[in-house]
Amino acid sequence: MKVLVVGASGLIGKAVVQDLERDHEVIQASHRRSTLSVDIKDAHSVQALFESVGKVDAIIATTGNVHFGALQTLRAEDFAQGLLDKLLGQVRLTLIGQHYLNEGGSITLTTGILSDEPIRDGTNAAAVNAGLEGFVRAAALALSGRRINVVSPTVLTEALEHYANSFPGFDSVPAWKVAAAYRRSVEGIQTGRVYRVGWVRDAR
Amino acid sequence: MKVLVVGASGLIGKAVVQDLERDHEVIQASHRRSTLSVDIKDAHSVQALFESVGKVDAIIATTGNVHFGALQTLRAEDFAQGLLDKLLGQVRLTLIGQHYLNEGGSITLTTGILSDEPIRDGTNAAAVNAGLEGFVRAAALALSGRRINVVSPTVLTEALEHYANSFPGFDSVPAWKVAAAYRRSVEGIQTGRVYRVGWVRDAR
Ligand SMILES: NC(=O)c1ccc[n+]([C@@H]2O[C@H](COP(=O)([O-])OP(=O)(O)OC[C@H]3O[C@@H](n4cnc5c(N)ncnc54)[C@H](OP(=O)(O)O)[C@@H]3O)[C@@H](O)[C@H]2O)c1
Ligand SMILES: NC(=O)c1ccc[n+]([C@@H]2O[C@H](COP(=O)([O-])OP(=O)(O)OC[C@H]3O[C@@H](n4cnc5c(N)ncnc54)[C@H](OP(=O)(O)O)[C@@H]3O)[C@@H](O)[C@H]2O)c1
Repeated sequence: MKVLVVGASGLIGKAVVQDLERDHEVIQASHRRSTLSVDIKDAHSVQALFESVGKVDAIIATTGNVHFGALQTLRAEDFAQGLLDKLLGQVRLTLIGQHYLNEGGSITLTTGILSDEPIRDGTNAAAVNAGLEGFVRAAALALSGRRINVVSPTVLTEALEHYANSFPGFDSVPAWKVAAAYRRSVEGIQTGRVYRVGWVRDAR
Repeated sequence: MKVLVVGASGLIGKAVVQDLERDHEVIQASHRRSTLSVDIKDAHSVQALFESVGKVDAIIATTGNVHFGALQTLRAEDFAQGLLDKLLGQVRLTLIGQHYLNEGGSITLTTGILSDEPIRDGTNAAAVNAGLEGFVRAAALALSGRRINVVSPTVLTEALEHYANSFPGFDSVPAWKVAAAYRRSVEGIQTGRVYRVGWVRDAR
């Protein structure tokens, strides 16, 4: 398959590329550090990316920023940042990308555990991740002949240091295991699925 | 209690006002048709509303528009409309309103069944409703001494005609029953809850 990875230079993106390259033709794009440059916040840039890449069998997004900040001092404009970046950016990639996706192809987006296990200062991340998952549930029913899923990892083992004490006591997951979920989405038959990776929940 | 209802002139808002007025001091606001005018898309307008109303014991939002349109032709700018209206508008009301909420007070927002049961052309509604619910889950853990919940109705019986054939075979719920969920949120002790009203799900 011909697979486009947007966010290929990132922690998750690199692991996804490394895993999928064993069996597929992988095209790497990201904001600045990959062969192909794209800004998911800019429709012209996303359109230009697909014009240069052409039709693909899978589109993967491992990208998107959210705003972290205390609820007490958060301003709506700060909150809008995450909505317009990680949420709308991946939606934009889907809306434009659907027209470059071969019959039977798939789109795989990225959210994260903060939709359901909020951390301090994480209200924006919760909204963005949950909103994207709602979008994916609905889009799966509208994308005829094509599939769309989302991968929602817990914090990555490799990122624990970067996030310092933001994930107290959380289980973490190594990047290679997160990459497997993208492969499951690309090569599987499911649509509208949230692949949760590394989530540990108490029985009840 | 002193209860502020934003969206008081709407189908749901009117039912909420009618129900709560029996026991509480209810202050009605909406875009144009209520005693107090406010635009949830404008921070200055929301700030001015709270300055004139002062401290309250409960804030209820029964408002917010989303964009309906086929996925195939949807543009990211159309999608952004709903994010910046129903989602960010209710978040803005929360962010500003928290500072006018008495200790022990509550905020109750409104989503809808489209988060989980998508209808044709409803990808934006799905994202907006799911995103707001993610926000409420996280905000509940950050709003110390105050509560926040959300009411998610199925389609209202009184709105079925307006929505024509968009909800084929859905169960509907009368406005008075939806109003009861807002009372439950205002007078109860829960926080971070999604009160689903009129949802009927198959057992599995
Ligand atoms: N790391 C974790 O523990 C974790 C856990 C759960 C979920 N997630 C989510 O997974 C996603 C990726 O996380 P990560 O840790 O892999 O991030 P990362 O290492 O910071 O990589 C981000 C990637 O996105 C690209 N990018 C940034 N802004 C962009 C834009 N406007 N347009 C196009 N590409 C852009 C970057 O490109 P350049 O390098 O070229 O600038 C890079 O390839 C994020 O949405 C994050 O919330 C991460
Ligand atoms: N109706 C249903 O079947 C149903 C089912 C599930 C969920 N919902 C959700 O419930 C919410 C209310 O629905 P509804 O049917 O009651 O709507 P509605 O009858 O159209 O009433 C909308 C209310 O919101 C106010 N409003 C509109 N734009 C505003 C703005 N920018 N700032 C402040 N107020 C604004 C309106 O004020 P003015 O009248 O003064 O303009 C009115 O009070 C919506 O988010 C809807 O998605 C509805």
